[in-house]
Amino acid sequence: MTAGASRGAPVAFVDGQRLWQRLMTLAQFGAVGEGGVDRPALSDTEANARARIVAWARALDMRPYTDRVANLFLRFEGTDPTLPPVLVGSHIDSQPTGGRFDGVYGVLAGLEVVQAILVSDKRPRRAIEVVAWTNEEGSRFAPGMTGSYVFTEQKSFDEVASTRDGQGIKLEDAAAWILQSDQDVELRDFGREACAYVEAHIEQGPLLQREGVPVGIVTGIQGTRRYRVSVDGAAAHAGTASREDRRDALMTAVRIIAALDDAADIAGLKCTVGLFNVVPNAPSVVPSNVVFSVDIRHPDNEVVDMIDGFLKTLAVEHRGRCTVSVRQIAHAPSLTFSRNIQNVIAEAAASAGVPCMSIYSSAGHDARQLHYFCPTGMIFIPCRDGVSHNPEEWAEPEHVTAGAKVLCETVWRLANDD
Amino acid sequence: MTAGASRGAPVAFVDGQRLWQRLMTLAQFGAVGEGGVDRPALSDTEANARARIVAWARALDMRPYTDRVANLFLRFEGTDPTLPPVLVGSHIDSQPTGGRFDGVYGVLAGLEVVQAILVSDKRPRRAIEVVAWTNEEGSRFAPGMTGSYVFTEQKSFDEVASTRDGQGIKLEDAAAWILQSDQDVELRDFGREACAYVEAHIEQGPLLQREGVPVGIVTGIQGTRRYRVSVDGAAAHAGTASREDRRDALMTAVRIIAALDDAADIAGLKCTVGLFNVVPNAPSVVPSNVVFSVDIRHPDNEVVDMIDGFLKTLAVEHRGRCTVSVRQIAHAPSLTFSRNIQNVIAEAAASAGVPCMSIYSSAGHDARQLHYFCPTGMIFIPCRDGVSHNPEEWAEPEHVTAGAKVLCETVWRLANDD
Repeated sequence: MTAGASRGAPVAFVDGQRLWQRLMTLAQFGAVGEGGVDRPALSDTEANARARIVAWARALDMRPYTDRVANLFLRFEGTDPTLPPVLVGSHIDSQPTGGRFDGVYGVLAGLEVVQAILVSDKRPRRAIEVVAWTNEEGSRFAPGMTGSYVFTEQKSFDEVASTRDGQGIKLEDAAAWILQSDQDVELRDFGREACAYVEAHIEQGPLLQREGVPVGIVTGIQGTRRYRVSVDGAAAHAGTASREDRRDALMTAVRIIAALDDAADIAGLKCTVGLFNVVPNAPSVVPSNVVFSVDIRHPDNEVVDMIDGFLKTLAVEHRGRCTVSVRQIAHAPSLTFSRNIQNVIAEAAASAGVPCMSIYSSAGHDARQLHYFCPTGMIFIPCRDGVSHNPEEWAEPEHVTAGAKVLCETVWRLANDD
Repeated sequence: MTAGASRGAPVAFVDGQRLWQRLMTLAQFGAVGEGGVDRPALSDTEANARARIVAWARALDMRPYTDRVANLFLRFEGTDPTLPPVLVGSHIDSQPTGGRFDGVYGVLAGLEVVQAILVSDKRPRRAIEVVAWTNEEGSRFAPGMTGSYVFTEQKSFDEVASTRDGQGIKLEDAAAWILQSDQDVELRDFGREACAYVEAHIEQGPLLQREGVPVGIVTGIQGTRRYRVSVDGAAAHAGTASREDRRDALMTAVRIIAALDDAADIAGLKCTVGLFNVVPNAPSVVPSNVVFSVDIRHPDNEVVDMIDGFLKTLAVEHRGRCTVSVRQIAHAPSLTFSRNIQNVIAEAAASAGVPCMSIYSSAGHDARQLHYFCPTGMIFIPCRDGVSHNPEEWAEPEHVTAGAKVLCETVWRLANDD
């Protein structure tokens, strides 16, 4: 197929309004205030959102499947069911202060692709499976991307099963609870073959908006390391324990973080302490323990590795009279997506008449794990001022539509490929 | 009465073993692990402990009263019921990581005083009221000392009524719940006249142990200021928001605290950040809000006032792109207890044959509020290594007994005074 979508091609049937309405409907599951969404992985809220998506999919002649980690697959059968399918999707869990687009867009755009194909009265050779991966955000069960890690067998189910949330609930129990609440959704194995994976997502950065381009072809994902740092001191009375006698876990944590933030003043480096838990967390008690997270990202793996070294050194230098342990919980090097998928997306955009540009992803996505499993690519659409993980998160309806069109043409091409 | 307790004087009937056993019994209410106690103010746990104390008191011919803030008064009638009573007591709530002695000792030592008097077959002229003040610790409802503040009418009930705990429960509702669970305990007004107040307590510092002296006559309490500092930034994605664009509430909080800790490196000054709450507290989200406590104490009011000035300056200097508000929630200047009560305690100790020394209190106590209401004094006993607000908190049985003897002789003298 060359430039210019042929008459009657599925892309002509992509309905931006329908997709927009589904986005707004899904934003009601876990809605908080003006535009905010709090939809923890494997929660009641997510189960309800999942049930709604399954209902939409069944109406599109799709069949739902799941696996033990509660990934959701909605299969639209191809003319040759023996061929490995094209996977298209993202996730439907959110950060506690999330918005309406992060994750959900990729899943609902996938549904819209299938609906456009259905309405065009065509069938692809390969099946298309719309996927919602479990616990991408990692804010309920840390670290995130659980579903894609386990599906691609980079982690075993046993490895993630006993991860606990803040209330002490195990991931395996939360997943089992979701499976129980599913209505007639068949269970299947991890690691089923796929011919490609494509994920549409908001950019979560300001570049597309700045350039005035509606679609980004993602070239790769920046490297990241994540840690839990635990500082142990001793609880003491705020009025009587002298400065010299204290083993103040909070002051030690503060010194380490301040020094790390100084060391992290490097162009393009992002260093975040998002989680900080104090024991006993009482105003009149010198803290006995602090656990905090560190998240380091940079496109250059060497910079990330350098900060890794700094963190370990600073933890020792500033520990004072406390003991400090630094535990790395995730390490994902920078990666470059399949050139072939990047080319297919570029051709698809040209064919659909949507301007596009190459762009690098600063955020991690499930596509990172799929990249090591099958040819993988991502499509970005702009989000206002780059704001994400925030109730203010916003994508323009015309960009939502443009991204779905490029996704539709991309998936259609991949699903009819040899 | 001169030195040397007369035969048959109540002090001879103080039974250290009985007092010790009651201490260990009460430590079961809210027991956590080895010696730890978690007994939040106005909780179920405290209600159960309170019911046990009321039962003990009734067996000693005492009558229980309470007030709207749930202070507990156990009245042992004097021969002249028209005279204002002697108050003796402390509190029974604990820090989340509390021990077996802080607070409870003063209440149970008061009961032991009454029991010794009862067994000696004597009656004081004035009534003796053993008191347990509500929410001294301030770890459930901040700030603390609520019961003594309201009883002495330095704060109105309305002023404290809508204080909420971490779960959003109002203090007035928690207090009403306790009153409901009381069995036949009469309600009375705040601010009832008292002729004196005496509080026995563990030192929560190392001086008595270091000097090898079993009883301290407390000369005064060091000054304190308490704050809540709130830092407002903006939530953002940890992987995409650039360092320059961030309004990171946690990094701002960390900078303020590190600078404050530098400024607080002054002999005798105690500066504590015990509480630190992050929103949304998720590893992949730049924090939008941090609220932390600051607790500053020093015997010299001028030093406390100086740090107060520092804190406000540092909050502005280090706010970066965030907004910072510093709210003082408590201010208690250093104070000196009644010379007369100090003298009575010294005479009582001499009479009971217990060595004593003068000592300054670094910790705040309900006696601070009573000091502004009636002649007030405190009796300290040593606690091991000065450790308090910690499961390791420990007082030797012989010191527990010695303190109760001095308290008994002190209260007996005050209750028979003109």
